[in-house]
Amino acid sequence: TSRMSELPITQINSRPGVIDLGMGNPDFDLLPLELLHQSAEKCFAVGDRRPLQYGTEAGDGYFRHSLAAFLGSRYGNQVDPDRLFVTAGASSALDLLCTLYTRPGDTIFVEEPTYFLALRIFEDHGLDAIPILMDGEGLCIDDLEGKLAAYKPKFIYTIPVFQNPSGITLSASRRQQLVQLAQLENFLVIADEAYQFLPYSRHKPPSFAEFTGQVEQIISVNSFSKILAPGLRLGWIQAHASVIARLASCGLLESGGGMNPYTSALVRGLIEDGGLDENITKLRGEYSRRLETLDKALRMHLPHAEYVKPEGGFFFWVRFPGVDAMELRGRAAGFKVDFRQGALFSSQKGMGEFLRLGFCFYDPPAIEEGIQRLADCLKG
Amino acid sequence: TSRMSELPITQINSRPGVIDLGMGNPDFDLLPLELLHQSAEKCFAVGDRRPLQYGTEAGDGYFRHSLAAFLGSRYGNQVDPDRLFVTAGASSALDLLCTLYTRPGDTIFVEEPTYFLALRIFEDHGLDAIPILMDGEGLCIDDLEGKLAAYKPKFIYTIPVFQNPSGITLSASRRQQLVQLAQLENFLVIADEAYQFLPYSRHKPPSFAEFTGQVEQIISVNSFSKILAPGLRLGWIQAHASVIARLASCGLLESGGGMNPYTSALVRGLIEDGGLDENITKLRGEYSRRLETLDKALRMHLPHAEYVKPEGGFFFWVRFPGVDAMELRGRAAGFKVDFRQGALFSSQKGMGEFLRLGFCFYDPPAIEEGIQRLADCLKG
Repeated sequence: TSRMSELPITQINSRPGVIDLGMGNPDFDLLPLELLHQSAEKCFAVGDRRPLQYGTEAGDGYFRHSLAAFLGSRYGNQVDPDRLFVTAGASSALDLLCTLYTRPGDTIFVEEPTYFLALRIFEDHGLDAIPILMDGEGLCIDDLEGKLAAYKPKFIYTIPVFQNPSGITLSASRRQQLVQLAQLENFLVIADEAYQFLPYSRHKPPSFAEFTGQVEQIISVNSFSKILAPGLRLGWIQAHASVIARLASCGLLESGGGMNPYTSALVRGLIEDGGLDENITKLRGEYSRRLETLDKALRMHLPHAEYVKPEGGFFFWVRFPGVDAMELRGRAAGFKVDFRQGALFSSQKGMGEFLRLGFCFYDPPAIEEGIQRLADCLKG
Repeated sequence: TSRMSELPITQINSRPGVIDLGMGNPDFDLLPLELLHQSAEKCFAVGDRRPLQYGTEAGDGYFRHSLAAFLGSRYGNQVDPDRLFVTAGASSALDLLCTLYTRPGDTIFVEEPTYFLALRIFEDHGLDAIPILMDGEGLCIDDLEGKLAAYKPKFIYTIPVFQNPSGITLSASRRQQLVQLAQLENFLVIADEAYQFLPYSRHKPPSFAEFTGQVEQIISVNSFSKILAPGLRLGWIQAHASVIARLASCGLLESGGGMNPYTSALVRGLIEDGGLDENITKLRGEYSRRLETLDKALRMHLPHAEYVKPEGGFFFWVRFPGVDAMELRGRAAGFKVDFRQGALFSSQKGMGEFLRLGFCFYDPPAIEEGIQRLADCLKG
């Protein structure tokens, strides 16, 4: 049993005593075990065995009905349940879209910087990722047009809201331009909107979901990992009917059935009784306090840090001019602090002066302590 | 709400009044809702939030520890938990193995006949499936050797125990030959052993798991779908350390974390308290009664049917000489009965005189009624 006490359960793997400000995981203390317990009790009380059977391919119709109502109230537009496809999370969605819509050797476009583990999924599918520059309004349309003259991408992968790692949200006018280009040049826009429901200001971010009714090329990917619990492996795609039909009729789904019938039933209960809304409200309150803590700590201990304070999501994207973040990270271990170096998020290994710092995993005192240690490391 | 009452939850979709003997789904009444309720209660009582977090890539270490103990006692050989990788079911395992070990245009070998929906997964990956003949001992090694002279397959997909659809189990000597050929010619053997723990005689079938410790090319794929509940989307791969390392370090797993942490924790409880063993014992008792019912009904109502009575699994593979099963199926709707025609299971659209009949979804009276209707249809 001494060995048993060391078996891994989660991806979280920091050495004892280290404050890893690089993490993109939710805080354990904010994982809604009690809400899920209540929802499970209600499900078991109803006694429906159907969520234990092979599920219908697009996902439980009642779950999609409830999810559509939830999304409709958040977006302020009606959502058709038949335009929703249930996934096992955003990563599973990306993997499936790569299998069905690309072949190895195909070109795709990604943001520079972008979510580094999405790049790993694209690599496993043999795809050639071309970076598109970003500025404060998100994806640079000029650069996109230039690259479209040289390449014919199968899709562009974008994180349009509170981007991982930069925190940037794509502006409304650029969204329009991107959608027009996608139609004109016939490439897919895979919009990973995992941070959509975590704004910390009053401003409600737009979603690519609004285009999916009309435009075949637009695919909105979302997940319960950031608003409920990653361990449920549950997410959804909202897309045009033709995309939903392709996904639901593929071999993986016809064989294994819908992606997570059991956890779908659990989350359906939480949507219907308001538990999901309650959880999001709680997370937004807590995360916005942590965001303020990180902002204040940076201004106090690291006044030379360059960053735009994010308005949502999980991350600060911080530049230290003249600093080699990779080299810094090597020394950070000695100060019992960690982060993610910018080069991880660059398909070209650029972004060498940047650090990704997360504010959702630790409580405010740990965030402040972590930034103090980082400041000591930068001085030392 | 009248529309609500018609929303799909499961893949089961038969018209009212039709007895669909083609189905490969478990019976709703045998899905262990009570066992899962007990296990969920215990999990919630412990109050561990870790199964809600991003899971470690190979799957929860404690779950794999318990699963290894379960497998060790069934196989009669110790199983190393580090040789296990948790999947979201056998279909997800096949999909991931195709992504990581093949490229479109690659050749693979499949059994003739084989599980038709696996063929659909291989198609989505652009693979070229070459059929290998089977006889009463399973895969014909002669035919395999002949095809190996002409093709260089990336893998062979086999269902070595109580095969879907034929019910055949690969003999011990052919297993040895297959393993030797795989090493010599360096192709993978993907053994889908979903029916491994559902024998209805005293004879315990062998497993390819026994080779995975030594031979890099052998991959045993298994699932809780047939021994517990498909809606949990949970299964496992047992393989050589090099295969486990490749799976656990791929982009999909590094990004999304282990495949189903929440349902893993639920099933871990059922393994540890004996609930899984209890469920398998119950299923074997019930399914073997149903198997006898189908056998008796065939002998009584359809004495010209040619088949080998299966010793496990879900299916009878029945030949009616001179009958076109596809044409018969068209007429079967009028008799309120259904089945799967043999051609579905042939990568070459052969097997035209065969029918796949399942015995696990319906209770004995429905099975008997279904066979009577089939007899009427064959006469009519």
